[in-house]
Amino acid sequence: MKLSHIALAAPKIDDVLEKLRVLELKVKETHEVPSEKVKAAMVPVEFSPHFRIEILEPTAQDSPIAKFLERKPAGGMHHLCFEVSQLERWLKVVQDAGLEVLPPGIRKAARGKAFFIHPKSLAGVLVELEEIA
Amino acid sequence: MKLSHIALAAPKIDDVLEKLRVLELKVKETHEVPSEKVKAAMVPVEFSPHFRIEILEPTAQDSPIAKFLERKPAGGMHHLCFEVSQLERWLKVVQDAGLEVLPPGIRKAARGKAFFIHPKSLAGVLVELEEIA
Repeated sequence: MKLSHIALAAPKIDDVLEKLRVLELKVKETHEVPSEKVKAAMVPVEFSPHFRIEILEPTAQDSPIAKFLERKPAGGMHHLCFEVSQLERWLKVVQDAGLEVLPPGIRKAARGKAFFIHPKSLAGVLVELEEIA
Repeated sequence: MKLSHIALAAPKIDDVLEKLRVLELKVKETHEVPSEKVKAAMVPVEFSPHFRIEILEPTAQDSPIAKFLERKPAGGMHHLCFEVSQLERWLKVVQDAGLEVLPPGIRKAARGKAFFIHPKSLAGVLVELEEIA
């Protein structure tokens, strides 16, 4: 059981690739899958040695996860997180590229600090960038 | 820029862990993050050497991805895929555990064969198991 891919759906691949270039992620190849009636772009990524799937359960009704579950009661994929160094530099890169950052910007995270990119700026996907302390 | 985690939201962590055990994925540790008002369970996973993020764009209006975009026009995370060997054995394991498999079961995939587990059986997440030919 080895994780093979994470699939994102998007109206236009090129729009997503443009945003991913801001994060220095680049497409390796694009091909059509006629049986599924899709065009697929492959974007290789590196892994943190700490990589894991995280399951998040709300502990209060005003938790961000509780609000997500109001819209999707059965649960679902909530966000992707990338580990970076120089988080302040990445905040500037992301904002200079016109991607929206969720307030309050850089915040304390479980193991360091982090900020979130609004899903509307990145193919409907909430993306966290974190720097481990 | 290294992938650090994929976060799933769920009403009850224990329910998800029970399903993940069917896939032989086990929790390593669980902790609370008071600032985010969540409990988080960490599930380590291995990677396929072929791992990538896939961006899927529909090429026809009756594509499954087109249907997804009707509900989420901006796009979003669509599915997770795990690479396995002995796909037929996994189909039996998954069905014997009471998880629902999408019809028609095992199908031809881009690079081999695959089947999908219904999101309602796994924390709202569509999960593909594939075997590379």
